[in-house]
Amino acid sequence: MTRWKLILEWDGAPFMGWQRQDHGPSVQAAVERAARAMTGEEVRAQAAGRTDAGVHAVGMAAHIELAKELTAHRLREGLNALLRPDPVAVLSAEPVADDWHARFSCVGRRYLYRISNRRAPLTLDRGKAWRIGLPLDVAAMREAAALLVGRHDFTTFRSVHCQSDSPVKTLDRLEVQQVGDEVHVHAAARSFLHHQVRSMVGCLALVGQGQWTPDDMRGALEARDRAALGLNAPAEGLYFVEALYPA
Amino acid sequence: MTRWKLILEWDGAPFMGWQRQDHGPSVQAAVERAARAMTGEEVRAQAAGRTDAGVHAVGMAAHIELAKELTAHRLREGLNALLRPDPVAVLSAEPVADDWHARFSCVGRRYLYRISNRRAPLTLDRGKAWRIGLPLDVAAMREAAALLVGRHDFTTFRSVHCQSDSPVKTLDRLEVQQVGDEVHVHAAARSFLHHQVRSMVGCLALVGQGQWTPDDMRGALEARDRAALGLNAPAEGLYFVEALYPA
Repeated sequence: MTRWKLILEWDGAPFMGWQRQDHGPSVQAAVERAARAMTGEEVRAQAAGRTDAGVHAVGMAAHIELAKELTAHRLREGLNALLRPDPVAVLSAEPVADDWHARFSCVGRRYLYRISNRRAPLTLDRGKAWRIGLPLDVAAMREAAALLVGRHDFTTFRSVHCQSDSPVKTLDRLEVQQVGDEVHVHAAARSFLHHQVRSMVGCLALVGQGQWTPDDMRGALEARDRAALGLNAPAEGLYFVEALYPA
Repeated sequence: MTRWKLILEWDGAPFMGWQRQDHGPSVQAAVERAARAMTGEEVRAQAAGRTDAGVHAVGMAAHIELAKELTAHRLREGLNALLRPDPVAVLSAEPVADDWHARFSCVGRRYLYRISNRRAPLTLDRGKAWRIGLPLDVAAMREAAALLVGRHDFTTFRSVHCQSDSPVKTLDRLEVQQVGDEVHVHAAARSFLHHQVRSMVGCLALVGQGQWTPDDMRGALEARDRAALGLNAPAEGLYFVEALYPA
């Protein structure tokens, strides 16, 4: 058996998320189906993170194990051919050690959240960003974001469905950037709670629109109470960017 | 009557192009329908350029005339609401002089062509760029592009359906840029022949893949013969960026 690390990109719109679901298509099922079609083997794919329905990925790490002998090139090309027409692509494939695990070996995760800050509805970026019509105060958003960086109890920013043992996480980065008429929020941590990035971005958007002060963000964090959450940002603006592993 | 200049953005995928067609949806018909729904008036929209089926726009200029009195804000918001769910958006609206004409007053047009230079199929950018799997030699493409800049007879790069009086045009800019794993071609001229940008990009792609030398590009230009065209690039990578008018 060879264990393969795959770097995946996908458009989240048609999927219920990464994880296999009974009630709709998932990226995991698409990858497993393509690998099975290529090798005839029952394949189980594991990813660094389980994304929600509608969330995109530009660099998700995953792994599969195959008995069939293949080159990395042939595996990538074969999976990509068989993934059509699903909007999932294998950007790279490389053999890894048998104990390498996309989820459990992962020591860092990076997300990007794209806000399109304009009045006009989205056309080319429809489903690819969260449009907010009111002008955002990026400086205030930066100030509020800085309050969340570090080790905190993120209960407020955690979905009720979160399966993490502890609500305490260390947020390494939460950076707000103006990029043309977009506002990008970059988030990095060893791991995140379920809905954490979208919940933080939702509250940052309230700050950006002047409905919250940065101090309200501090209050929400300190409340350690989901009821203190201002807003959960929609899935369509969120991108899983990169999973980090020890060298 | 007030004449309004509109700046439009659209996703070209579902449209037969700008111009009203009997056999399918057009951006022109969508804009006219929205304006009619808003005012009850028979409205005729004119644009700076007639784009092909599948070609996108991020800053097309157009104009309409309305008897109904409206503010620019209300016109823009109303049209955007009525354009749904078509992927067309009015980015701005402003009143202009009665003799201002989106097409005939235009003194410059800018296009962007996006090539995604990677092996993996496109997911998030599907329909938004032309994917070329073989690595492109951007330096060679630049050398070939430079040969096309200036005043030339562009018959080779002109569709048989082109309605322009003359095949002689002055190409002000044809620049090839590497942007991550994309190659962008920027084209600017007072006006272009039908299919000119896509035809030039198609031949640049041959040069980038080593199938043509820059000298072959010179030969194609000098042939002044459509049969000398190497390749017409697909519509989905092309974006109308900007129309320029005298200050």
